Amino acid sequence: MATLQTITLIGSGNVATHLGRALLNKGFTINEVYSKSINNASLLALKLNATATDNIKQLNDKSDAYLICIKDGFIENIIKQFNLTDKIIAHTSGSVDMDLLGQFINHGILYPLQTFSKEVAINMDEVPFCVEANNAHAEHLLLELGKSLSKSVHRINSEQRKKIHLAAVFACNFSNYMYTISEDILNQNNIDFSILKPLIIETARKIKSNSPKSIQTGPAKRKDEAVIKNHIELLANAKDYQDIYKIITENIIKSN
Amino acid sequence: MATLQTITLIGSGNVATHLGRALLNKGFTINEVYSKSINNASLLALKLNATATDNIKQLNDKSDAYLICIKDGFIENIIKQFNLTDKIIAHTSGSVDMDLLGQFINHGILYPLQTFSKEVAINMDEVPFCVEANNAHAEHLLLELGKSLSKSVHRINSEQRKKIHLAAVFACNFSNYMYTISEDILNQNNIDFSILKPLIIETARKIKSNSPKSIQTGPAKRKDEAVIKNHIELLANAKDYQDIYKIITENIIKSN
Repeated sequence: MATLQTITLIGSGNVATHLGRALLNKGFTINEVYSKSINNASLLALKLNATATDNIKQLNDKSDAYLICIKDGFIENIIKQFNLTDKIIAHTSGSVDMDLLGQFINHGILYPLQTFSKEVAINMDEVPFCVEANNAHAEHLLLELGKSLSKSVHRINSEQRKKIHLAAVFACNFSNYMYTISEDILNQNNIDFSILKPLIIETARKIKSNSPKSIQTGPAKRKDEAVIKNHIELLANAKDYQDIYKIITENIIKSN
Repeated sequence: MATLQTITLIGSGNVATHLGRALLNKGFTINEVYSKSINNASLLALKLNATATDNIKQLNDKSDAYLICIKDGFIENIIKQFNLTDKIIAHTSGSVDMDLLGQFINHGILYPLQTFSKEVAINMDEVPFCVEANNAHAEHLLLELGKSLSKSVHRINSEQRKKIHLAAVFACNFSNYMYTISEDILNQNNIDFSILKPLIIETARKIKSNSPKSIQTGPAKRKDEAVIKNHIELLANAKDYQDIYKIITENIIKSN
């Protein structure tokens, strides 16, 4: 069975950038990069030895696989504008149904469960990939593609993938927002955020070998009402943070 | 100037356990361990080559420093029951005023800014210690004690310490609760929590060299209303999580 060797990236954002780099490092050929902005397409294409286009209707058909790495809301409109039979067409989104790609004979999902920022290097080897496809041929090829990038490749259906994506919003986006609030509180009091960094790293590190529920600490866990009252007072001038403090504290107390 | 060499631990919980071990490793002598439970006192004392007591009124007076590592709410009552002049009396709490220790001639704070679980080993060397004291003598001795445990020792007054403690609740306790929610969502869908671990570790690791505000990602950051709506629907049977999802999402959108 053939493998996917030549890849087109549809998108030039964080996911396209990190996937593109990792694929190139693993010996894949990046054929073409599409972005609605020709500047962005060209910038990424240059790094990946690929050609650039902003014309989705004229994607060249020389790739084995076309990876759609654009914002969820734009996928439907983009795929209406091209049709490539015999190719593998996959998107990389955590929350978009596979069925959306139904017009393509061989289609699927290659969802990297990681947070990508352009400027932060990532060890792709450790990134879990969630793979789904509409037939055994496409599934085999996408699993192989995943395995050439990472040690952690999983067959995950669309329902499960949406739940994973939802869980990831809590685990990643919302915990990062908790860090943001803590940084803001320190900044407002002229304290360097770096004093919190070991705590943040350790809090995350602990879940490697412990269920987070089993290692919950803090005033809410202890139901320490004096401290909780004091914290709520300290947040009197930050109503939004106060509301978040209250609702999470109530939930931790309830789950005890 | 003398140094603190012989230490009494008042408390036998996570903080007392980790501090005791670290002090012993650095060559300090742990003289006595107090706990209201003689079993707990004895268990820890055994590990630290110390004697155990559950009688706070008869603490032996042979230590240079007495470190109070008990729940905030119990500190006031405990210190009423003993008085040791010429000793350094310090508590390790993030949120209790130093003034509470006013009855002691030399008193202060040695607050380790870290999350301690009994079963999880910690590199004390990297733990930031916040030190405050009521006079130069006590401050010098507590700073020295901190520096023998850690590379990261800071003079922090009570007002700042309370703000740091509040920020730490967001950064540590609340982010751990976000992990807990994500684990619960996955468990309910028979997906192993381990698939999220690289994401959690990476999300924390990123703040080593980035402001969390600058690296916020996710549907709220992108204001991706379709995904947000879908996530809220997925949480229809978990009203508490849904409320938390909504309030944090609203706040991320507002702060954009």
